[in-house]
Amino acid sequence: MEYQAGAYGAAVIGAGHAGIEAALACARLGVPTVLFTLNLDAVANMPCNPSIGGTAKGHLVREIDALGGEMGRAADATFLQSRMLNRGKGPAVHSLRMQCDRRAYHARMKHVLETTPLLDLKQAEVVEIRVRKGAVSAVVTRLGAVFTVRAVVIATGTYLRGRVHIGEVSYESGPDGMFGPSLLSDNLQKLGLPLLRFKTGTPARVKRASIDFSTLEVQTGDNPVIPFSFETENPGENTAVCHIAYTNAETHHIIRENLHRSPLYAGRIEGVGPRYCPSIEDKVVRFADKERHQIFIEPLGKDTEELYLGGISSSLPEEVQMQFLRTIKGFDHIRMMRTAYAIEYDCIDPLALTPMLETKAVQGLYGAGQFNGTSGYEEAAAQGLMAGINAALQIKGEVPLVLSRAQAYIGTLIDDLVTKGTNEPYRMMTSRAEYRLVLRQDNADMRLTPIGYRIGLISDERFVRFKEKQRQIQTERQRTEKIILPPSAKLNAYLEQVGTTPLTTGAKLADLLRRPQVHYDALAPFDLGRPVLPEAVREQVEISVKYEGYIKRENAAIEQMHRLEQRVLPPDIDYRAVSGLRLEAMSKLEAVRPINIAQASRISGVSPADISVLLIYLEQRRGADADCFT
Amino acid sequence: MEYQAGAYGAAVIGAGHAGIEAALACARLGVPTVLFTLNLDAVANMPCNPSIGGTAKGHLVREIDALGGEMGRAADATFLQSRMLNRGKGPAVHSLRMQCDRRAYHARMKHVLETTPLLDLKQAEVVEIRVRKGAVSAVVTRLGAVFTVRAVVIATGTYLRGRVHIGEVSYESGPDGMFGPSLLSDNLQKLGLPLLRFKTGTPARVKRASIDFSTLEVQTGDNPVIPFSFETENPGENTAVCHIAYTNAETHHIIRENLHRSPLYAGRIEGVGPRYCPSIEDKVVRFADKERHQIFIEPLGKDTEELYLGGISSSLPEEVQMQFLRTIKGFDHIRMMRTAYAIEYDCIDPLALTPMLETKAVQGLYGAGQFNGTSGYEEAAAQGLMAGINAALQIKGEVPLVLSRAQAYIGTLIDDLVTKGTNEPYRMMTSRAEYRLVLRQDNADMRLTPIGYRIGLISDERFVRFKEKQRQIQTERQRTEKIILPPSAKLNAYLEQVGTTPLTTGAKLADLLRRPQVHYDALAPFDLGRPVLPEAVREQVEISVKYEGYIKRENAAIEQMHRLEQRVLPPDIDYRAVSGLRLEAMSKLEAVRPINIAQASRISGVSPADISVLLIYLEQRRGADADCFT
Repeated sequence: MEYQAGAYGAAVIGAGHAGIEAALACARLGVPTVLFTLNLDAVANMPCNPSIGGTAKGHLVREIDALGGEMGRAADATFLQSRMLNRGKGPAVHSLRMQCDRRAYHARMKHVLETTPLLDLKQAEVVEIRVRKGAVSAVVTRLGAVFTVRAVVIATGTYLRGRVHIGEVSYESGPDGMFGPSLLSDNLQKLGLPLLRFKTGTPARVKRASIDFSTLEVQTGDNPVIPFSFETENPGENTAVCHIAYTNAETHHIIRENLHRSPLYAGRIEGVGPRYCPSIEDKVVRFADKERHQIFIEPLGKDTEELYLGGISSSLPEEVQMQFLRTIKGFDHIRMMRTAYAIEYDCIDPLALTPMLETKAVQGLYGAGQFNGTSGYEEAAAQGLMAGINAALQIKGEVPLVLSRAQAYIGTLIDDLVTKGTNEPYRMMTSRAEYRLVLRQDNADMRLTPIGYRIGLISDERFVRFKEKQRQIQTERQRTEKIILPPSAKLNAYLEQVGTTPLTTGAKLADLLRRPQVHYDALAPFDLGRPVLPEAVREQVEISVKYEGYIKRENAAIEQMHRLEQRVLPPDIDYRAVSGLRLEAMSKLEAVRPINIAQASRISGVSPADISVLLIYLEQRRGADADCFT
Repeated sequence: MEYQAGAYGAAVIGAGHAGIEAALACARLGVPTVLFTLNLDAVANMPCNPSIGGTAKGHLVREIDALGGEMGRAADATFLQSRMLNRGKGPAVHSLRMQCDRRAYHARMKHVLETTPLLDLKQAEVVEIRVRKGAVSAVVTRLGAVFTVRAVVIATGTYLRGRVHIGEVSYESGPDGMFGPSLLSDNLQKLGLPLLRFKTGTPARVKRASIDFSTLEVQTGDNPVIPFSFETENPGENTAVCHIAYTNAETHHIIRENLHRSPLYAGRIEGVGPRYCPSIEDKVVRFADKERHQIFIEPLGKDTEELYLGGISSSLPEEVQMQFLRTIKGFDHIRMMRTAYAIEYDCIDPLALTPMLETKAVQGLYGAGQFNGTSGYEEAAAQGLMAGINAALQIKGEVPLVLSRAQAYIGTLIDDLVTKGTNEPYRMMTSRAEYRLVLRQDNADMRLTPIGYRIGLISDERFVRFKEKQRQIQTERQRTEKIILPPSAKLNAYLEQVGTTPLTTGAKLADLLRRPQVHYDALAPFDLGRPVLPEAVREQVEISVKYEGYIKRENAAIEQMHRLEQRVLPPDIDYRAVSGLRLEAMSKLEAVRPINIAQASRISGVSPADISVLLIYLEQRRGADADCFT
């Protein structure tokens, strides 16, 4: 029996990393929001690795933070170990990664949700999304509660019709003994949404005391710790170390001998797995010549002995998992606490989404996270934030927010999804971002905080601090172009020591900084008028000088793309009526319905010739439209 | 496909309050033990009220602690508010109750389990218990892992074939979106265990900010806090308050009007509920003349806004729950975070258990907690401890441990279960203990710590401290019988003030203490030779003096019962061959198979005349047995 349970602006289904950001964004933008979860004790759960960030993912977290999202703050508040990865490489690929206390992260996020005005967190299973005149009108729970809403964000992660696979065994389930609900899935199919079946996997959790750490490599964190969030002033210290172990020939032999028992290789899994997050059996098959694979041993929390074995997810039978684990040095007496498994789940074909992450079929219905075909907490959170922002903006009657590929990894991620689709769980990588010299994790705030402030997710107080940082960078950058460092014995000694030519006459500070070997901080003793500046400011000054040439070139390319982005494709175009388009382009354009020429040009199957046709069509149409008004 | 996963002494199924104590007891007694849970994140979960102890239950916790169990220490370490209930009444019914931080309690218990030697905690679903020659031989998980074991403790709580009911809606489920597994249930039936179907329920969890506390009564904790455990020296302070609200005529009206929608009243629940933990609809029906019922508003933790509404569990439709909640003063804008529900589950008929909590059908197979037909965390933990101890003792070939009704509430609880059975979830109450003047919560250590030490669950260090406490009590008790307090103006002023006759000649300290109005601590100014003693010692001295007469009388009754306990009934008696027994007695005795005459006398349907017959039979048999050896 149904009953009217209340009215909200937005409903969010699922309180994982995507759903949380979506619900917080909606509520913070002034939209009364209800967030549904199957289990309040599993809010913000990390069913896979207990960490936030990593290569390219760290960029996403910084961008989420720059826009006013929560993930970075939560990681800063609950980390056990923090490391900036890829420091040996250029600043474009530096990526922050924090091992977090999994239960503390849950508790903090849950509390933030509970204390956010206009937001209600509720344990309930949503079984139906109601549509009226093409737009969402309500959600219905299993208990018959009908909530009237104007927008819905689906963020069901791996739960929707979840099926766990371990060797020959499989059963319906979400992660960790939870339900994998199917009623909502049936409903989405009825709504005409094209569902895909993806799979992902996770490695075993093992007991700390069962590992002999004396033979393993230790991995320590950074000192001092660099936080994710612009708002975190004192991030605290690392309180845990990680360890590294390695598979070996015997491990690989056991895996190969048992491949026929893998549900994937035996054909029992129909879902498609993440290519860039392969199981250990995939690694052994695809990189057959590799002698060993790394295993990152990561603590799940400060008050638990459970350890995560990063890098060796598996869906082999438990028996085989135990056999291959025991071959690893240090793992002779390993005890498994949670068995590795693969999980299949329903998700949407992201080509059915607009760049606002709204479904094309139903107005006000948004998707985010693994439901949209991605993999990873950070990818999920990024989409959740954008879906939440756009749901709120639509309800408020404001202009939607679409980040371009030149503005953010988030823009790149969403554009990839909705323009190219994906036939496997999509993972963010720096190589997917063509403008990655500009899209650095260190300048996420410069790129996005003005946007976050404009839409209303950044506080005045934070924005004032942000503007001051901007001012300091600009002032100091200008000073580097003015100040001349005179040659001196000490300066020349430094220059020779780092392997670059000594000065004979004075040199501009900026010119010296352009030499790859020379560092801004190292020049302090020779640059007497230098102001005292925070590390984050000094870093921006150095990067902007050192990579100026590259950045200029990239900005030129971005400029070109921006021009194409301004060539908006009206939503009512009938591509079948645009003469000159090739048939394939016609059908792809009809399916994707790009919002501008730039997006159209990235659709696979749309050629430069098709783009020319479109540009001509737009010109003609503009002329025609203009005629109407004369 | 099955595989040999290892060998343990004992396996425990379920890591709730019963399973935890069982597993810890086994491992601490030197038996390698594996503890299975469906979800490592739900270890030590409190699916109902976030508190430990309470009337009669506080006694159980003290007894668990006195024997070396874990519950008391965990509560002491994670409490938010602690209160000694019933202080206005006699010491027999004083009961300690602690509101605990639910997630902190989970985390602490999980960590204790993880760090206990010889204990492995594993996330897995046990689907089969294997029996060989009438004794357990192995358990098998859903993934085909076969663990060879010599004992199994089943502690499945409300999960076994769990079915949630809320109004007209019902579905298969454990608590909070978890599985309610059925495969093990099928297996137990095949093993010939008689299963019952019980139900229990829980109230809603609501959002703190949705309550107007200004109109509600505040309930604060004790200062100083008295800990549960003998081992807790500095229990810390209360950090939370609770509140009390009341139902009213309108609340009751709504409930009555909607009784037909209750799954219980509509006959949709076959399981039997706990009479002494009634739902609000039961209260409204059974106590129709009562104008209001209390609601205890209790925090779920320090970092969550979820509040528990103690006293109004319900399985009415969610809509009706919301309607009646809104009628309560302070609840006008109530927001529900988790809906109240009833849950049906499979459990064993406890008449199928021995006083060691071993099944009569299968050697080495034990039951504990809700699986044995009880209700309550403390009842569960008490049985888990005893089942674990007896499993370990059996494996080690030692004499089993059965506590008598005169030794402990634990003994009373288990004797009630296995002698009388139960047709509803059994709850501990002080009225169930006929020796409750002796079985006080304040002397649990005196009664049981020597036993805990003997079997090996109490450390040497703790036992030394315990003996010292015993010595102090004894010495001071003796001193009270020697010391004469002379009459003085000040002493007489005190005596008159508390309403008792002043002294004309000197009086023995003990005689003064026997006056109900006079308290040990108050006499300190007139008792100059008094040593400085801890509160726990002073309390024992006072109680032993004040209630000496009552206690002596109770001890005489206990003595009588002990004599009957020593008349052991051999396990091989064929009651059908004992002539003179009434038919009903015969069949009851066959079913229960009491271990001694005392237990036999408590079986309903066994009359004093039957007991006389049994005593004569024993005499004859003893004679016959003796004859054999001559």
